[in-house]
Amino acid sequence: MDDADVDGLVITNLVNVRWCAGFTGSHGVLLIRPDSATLITDSRYATQAPEQISEAGADIDILISADLVSEGSGLMADSTAIGLEADDITWADQHRWASAVDRDLVPTHALITELRSVKDDAELARMQRAAEIVDSVLAEVDSMLVVGTTERDLANALDDGMRARGASGPAYETIVAGGPNAALPHARPSTRPFEEGDLVVIDAGSVVDAYRSDMTRTFMIGAPDETARTIHDLVTRAQAAGVASVRAGVAVGDIDRACRDLITDEGYGAEFGHGTGHGVGLDIHELPSVRGGNSAILQPGQVITVEPGIYLPGVGGVRVEDMVVVTDDGCRALTRSPKISLK
Amino acid sequence: MDDADVDGLVITNLVNVRWCAGFTGSHGVLLIRPDSATLITDSRYATQAPEQISEAGADIDILISADLVSEGSGLMADSTAIGLEADDITWADQHRWASAVDRDLVPTHALITELRSVKDDAELARMQRAAEIVDSVLAEVDSMLVVGTTERDLANALDDGMRARGASGPAYETIVAGGPNAALPHARPSTRPFEEGDLVVIDAGSVVDAYRSDMTRTFMIGAPDETARTIHDLVTRAQAAGVASVRAGVAVGDIDRACRDLITDEGYGAEFGHGTGHGVGLDIHELPSVRGGNSAILQPGQVITVEPGIYLPGVGGVRVEDMVVVTDDGCRALTRSPKISLK
Repeated sequence: MDDADVDGLVITNLVNVRWCAGFTGSHGVLLIRPDSATLITDSRYATQAPEQISEAGADIDILISADLVSEGSGLMADSTAIGLEADDITWADQHRWASAVDRDLVPTHALITELRSVKDDAELARMQRAAEIVDSVLAEVDSMLVVGTTERDLANALDDGMRARGASGPAYETIVAGGPNAALPHARPSTRPFEEGDLVVIDAGSVVDAYRSDMTRTFMIGAPDETARTIHDLVTRAQAAGVASVRAGVAVGDIDRACRDLITDEGYGAEFGHGTGHGVGLDIHELPSVRGGNSAILQPGQVITVEPGIYLPGVGGVRVEDMVVVTDDGCRALTRSPKISLK
Repeated sequence: MDDADVDGLVITNLVNVRWCAGFTGSHGVLLIRPDSATLITDSRYATQAPEQISEAGADIDILISADLVSEGSGLMADSTAIGLEADDITWADQHRWASAVDRDLVPTHALITELRSVKDDAELARMQRAAEIVDSVLAEVDSMLVVGTTERDLANALDDGMRARGASGPAYETIVAGGPNAALPHARPSTRPFEEGDLVVIDAGSVVDAYRSDMTRTFMIGAPDETARTIHDLVTRAQAAGVASVRAGVAVGDIDRACRDLITDEGYGAEFGHGTGHGVGLDIHELPSVRGGNSAILQPGQVITVEPGIYLPGVGGVRVEDMVVVTDDGCRALTRSPKISLK
């Protein structure tokens, strides 16, 4: 807050509220002042809010009110420069706060999400568990990777398997994309059955205690042709090069370059049309963004994905992804499903 | 735009962009000026955007650019009062537009979403189809409403059945909530198996061509006890009273009152803790909001839900919901699954 030149902060992003206070309700705002913090929420959460805040061990007052803005503006009476999360709050809500407090509002950016990017041991343990669950489900559904299985059937089996192992559900819409669908980075599972010669991209994560995992492997139905062999091997090597370049102190953009240079050198640069990865945690996409030119420096405890891909429209595609935690001398993979080799 | 006192409008809400222009991409902005309209999007959509705009029969120019704001601000050079969708745009993005255009920005509210609330025949046909799909899936899974079936199994069967009949998927996370879970209006399907004496709330909708449906029925496993009988009958009567009160020219709040008065009179007012319904269309929650005190007047072609409920914590709950289209002399239900009777 000192860096942002504010002496009061209004946290409206509910994931940030959860991270700061442990509160999981769907309506609430957290007010931070130099020597105190207050959660305002409505009467539906009169029991839940104190329980969760006490469980989180947070020293936060609770105020129950139907009107967060007028209640909150009263509490901020002594703050001279009040910060609002500019990338989260709508212009209309900003206007409501401005009218209510009748003084300077300061747009803040990524104050909390930057803090969130570095995970403590308890957070890492949940993400590790979320990754392990997908590792074991993926091993179990191996027998479904045959001609005739539909993308949707396999996606359902993965989602059901995650829940059966104690995940609260998938971390995002599970991707199972075979044949030409594998050429779409964000394909949704269809009723298309796998065919001989399909590359099948499986991109799956689970949620444990609100923390997410994220992993991709690309499988083969039947015998690979020359193209499948080439791009699968290239993406696998590029992904390994990216993971090998992860270390605290390195610029995030260098991870992207490690992957991309290899793919570009082999002539597939234009077919790798997305960033190399992203932070993961309570949100599936968090800071830092692992893309070219990002000069932010990796910190120990950050969790990022490394997920290059090559996509050939109408033909197929390959993506390989691990979620790793940054350490002082490298990184540790949280996702551990064996890598596929078509060589 | 005249009513809002603007001579230029920046549409950032992507569902509104889709409704106006037919464009379904994930990145774009639509600029409306008195005599022209321009969609700006990035190079990923260079092929898709002109195809979709031509298919929609819209007279809209297309501009491909990586920087929507700087490109867009140039196009708005002749507008003196530029409107932004204040309930959608973040404060940070509003700031970007303000810096770029260097003139008055006017917050607008619900300009497009009010127009969207009235559906034309093509929109109604899609919503009718989305509702019919759920009607037929629900009839098919009837045999699963027995002791031992888990909420999750039944929810999966519903979702799979929607897709098998041509829906692109569920319109929201399908709710199957049995026994004590039925007391939670927004329960998520769990692995709890149905038990003798459970009330089971099923709240399901599908998506056809981006348009959604929404319906709830409450079933019984085994023989109902006195409480189940009483609240199921009361909610069913309250819902029918609500539907009977729908007519163009009536205040939306009167629909809420028609349902709520009946439930309150029988002593369950405190157990009906949510609004009576909402508009449906491209979004699952649209205008108008069917809640007490809303003085907006129902218009022919609006589609709303009528969904009162009674929730007894730890015991169970009942909700009954139809999606209806408002007509001059009443309404027509788009959801047609038979009503359950426990009497």
